[in-house]
Amino acid sequence: MKIEILAVGSELLTPAFTDTNSLYLTRRLNDLGWDVARKSIVGDDADDLAAFIRDAVARVDLLLIMGGLGPTEDDKTREACAEALGRKLVYREDLYAAIRERFRRWGRDLPPSNAKQAYVLDGAEVLENRNGTAPGLRLREGRCEIVLLPGPPQELEPMFEVAVWPKLRERGEGATGRRVLKITGMGESDVETLIAGLYPPSGGPLRLTVLSAPGRIELHVTEFSRVKDVSVFPGLEALSRELQNRLGDHVYSTTDEELEEVVGRVLRARRQTLACAESCTGGLLAGRITGVPGSSAYFVEGFVTYNNEAKSRSLGVPPDLIRTHGAVSAEVAEAMAAGARFKASADYSLAVTGIAGPDGATPEKPVGLVFTALAWADGAETQRNIFFGRREQVRFQSTQKALDMLRRRLLRPGGT
Amino acid sequence: MKIEILAVGSELLTPAFTDTNSLYLTRRLNDLGWDVARKSIVGDDADDLAAFIRDAVARVDLLLIMGGLGPTEDDKTREACAEALGRKLVYREDLYAAIRERFRRWGRDLPPSNAKQAYVLDGAEVLENRNGTAPGLRLREGRCEIVLLPGPPQELEPMFEVAVWPKLRERGEGATGRRVLKITGMGESDVETLIAGLYPPSGGPLRLTVLSAPGRIELHVTEFSRVKDVSVFPGLEALSRELQNRLGDHVYSTTDEELEEVVGRVLRARRQTLACAESCTGGLLAGRITGVPGSSAYFVEGFVTYNNEAKSRSLGVPPDLIRTHGAVSAEVAEAMAAGARFKASADYSLAVTGIAGPDGATPEKPVGLVFTALAWADGAETQRNIFFGRREQVRFQSTQKALDMLRRRLLRPGGT
Repeated sequence: MKIEILAVGSELLTPAFTDTNSLYLTRRLNDLGWDVARKSIVGDDADDLAAFIRDAVARVDLLLIMGGLGPTEDDKTREACAEALGRKLVYREDLYAAIRERFRRWGRDLPPSNAKQAYVLDGAEVLENRNGTAPGLRLREGRCEIVLLPGPPQELEPMFEVAVWPKLRERGEGATGRRVLKITGMGESDVETLIAGLYPPSGGPLRLTVLSAPGRIELHVTEFSRVKDVSVFPGLEALSRELQNRLGDHVYSTTDEELEEVVGRVLRARRQTLACAESCTGGLLAGRITGVPGSSAYFVEGFVTYNNEAKSRSLGVPPDLIRTHGAVSAEVAEAMAAGARFKASADYSLAVTGIAGPDGATPEKPVGLVFTALAWADGAETQRNIFFGRREQVRFQSTQKALDMLRRRLLRPGGT
Repeated sequence: MKIEILAVGSELLTPAFTDTNSLYLTRRLNDLGWDVARKSIVGDDADDLAAFIRDAVARVDLLLIMGGLGPTEDDKTREACAEALGRKLVYREDLYAAIRERFRRWGRDLPPSNAKQAYVLDGAEVLENRNGTAPGLRLREGRCEIVLLPGPPQELEPMFEVAVWPKLRERGEGATGRRVLKITGMGESDVETLIAGLYPPSGGPLRLTVLSAPGRIELHVTEFSRVKDVSVFPGLEALSRELQNRLGDHVYSTTDEELEEVVGRVLRARRQTLACAESCTGGLLAGRITGVPGSSAYFVEGFVTYNNEAKSRSLGVPPDLIRTHGAVSAEVAEAMAAGARFKASADYSLAVTGIAGPDGATPEKPVGLVFTALAWADGAETQRNIFFGRREQVRFQSTQKALDMLRRRLLRPGGT
């Protein structure tokens, strides 16, 4: 089954927009064992669109088209389809009544332009839009099934789930299993060296892809099975296990959790609490920790002590210590962690101080130098890091490192 | 000039990846007055790729292809091009030597697979890759110029800037001006009502696009000029001015600044300082403020007082006030702002307390109820907000609202 996705809209061809609908559709098609062969974006040009559709119906079995079903004159998908396939657009009184009714419920008059949405490609089935005025359409042209979906995700996703996916599922040719191993604390080339030889042969059912970003590497393992609706993928299981063996505790998640979710889950289960003190990350670490629903069960307080006075006043870091070692030092990082732990009466505390850049560097302390610290009931540890990248990348990697220090401590054998 | 961009790679057809290279290329082509007619993504399938290239060279003047130039057997762009265009791949001893030299400098042996990168399409010009081993290629096929670029952004961007853009510029047909008006504090439909009638006629040189997300609306105005290298766009200026007249102080930026940059710029110029106190945003507000380089000049301290004890202990919010009104109340928001301002000895202080969800709601206090407060030397104000969306959307809108309260206060006529 050859499948393509087409997104329609000139705004999608500007530097400001990315298409996320296709990621969602791809995931749901993968669930049925299908890959997407090609994704395209075409602007609101009726000729370009018609040319694309004419070519595509000759080369694919399923063409999902999204966008361009709205009421404005820029919305040309229906018209281009009609042109490409040599079909008429047929006025449907019942659709018009439904759109009018929807506007009535909104307490608004129906603008004349919306009448356009009551026109349907001859021979097409109408897909109800429960969250907007643009109906979807499904039709067949030779070997190709064409589905027209509205562009807004809140309209596209429910329509796809209700009217499209269940029918595709009946024709499904298998299933694709997926596992993501998330790694931190090592570089991409070290990961590649450790997993060398584990890449499955290309063209087979198993696939392994490495996705690398500063502070985080992901290994994406997928397995295609010819059996529909299976939920166990033995090859994927075996490969994931072997990858985990090789990478050890650098793998912080195999279940799509982020680091803050991993540590949050453990803290919650142990009824332990956490505080943090931040300088260069400026609140991002606390922001990540509190991004987890229910984090109030274990997160007590964060201190964003951005200047030296705040570090002394709010965390009790001795001014002398700052004078002697500088605010960006292992000594101050540890004192910040200890101070936050004490002030908040928490079981654990994380601290970050560093130079995120672009300014603030000295010959001894370059941009990217960050000290991370962890304090607990009877101890503390500090780490000196050099992170590369822009300000936001240095800041993200700093939060990643701090959370990973806590994770490793929490998961120590016999740790409490 | 008809231009298309093709990204090559099966990983780009999975649910985890988005293509950002094409946004960069689009922006640079727009700078020369050109639009992109179509963007496509094709996997590492030699037949699919060759078919795409064969069709594309017949319909466009410029085809930018990125990715698939690496050393692995999945990298098939060169071979597919050769197949599609009926050209040979020619071994180039000088390229091989350059690649070997690069590996030598890295202190590594040249893997045999990299020899592949020394093969060049017959008749193609080689584009030097200063940041990787895959050379780029440029060739002409009939009316179509084809440029093959490496996929990694840190290789693609410098190669494009050095070897591709300057030559395109000579052929440039004009220039495209761009202005983004950023708006907060009103909904999309209110914006649409206010700017009704200002949409320029479609097909003309001026374009207006509305991009809407929770807490932020952007109006993108572009103007195409037939004059090369112009930097003044009268139509764009006039339309932007008129949009600003209609939208008034809801427009917080016309120069691509974010809210935290706008308030940071004013605070810095006035040598005033800022503190903040956060509950439901949990550090994100401080994180945004400190995301601005140089923010240490005005940002003093942030208090992430996630539980009630922390609000009383660190900010001096009376426990009685919390008991009487609840932690999510205008009274507590104002006390948090006043407390943070006092503790940090800052000129201004922002505070946020609310229910970000999904848990924590009560019949009186639904998910999305957020109080934002601003305190200054001789006054304070509080705002009651109901934000829609998921946890992260509620949190983002809360930071947006708090920053906008500060912006509006700072920009009051006669305000100091």
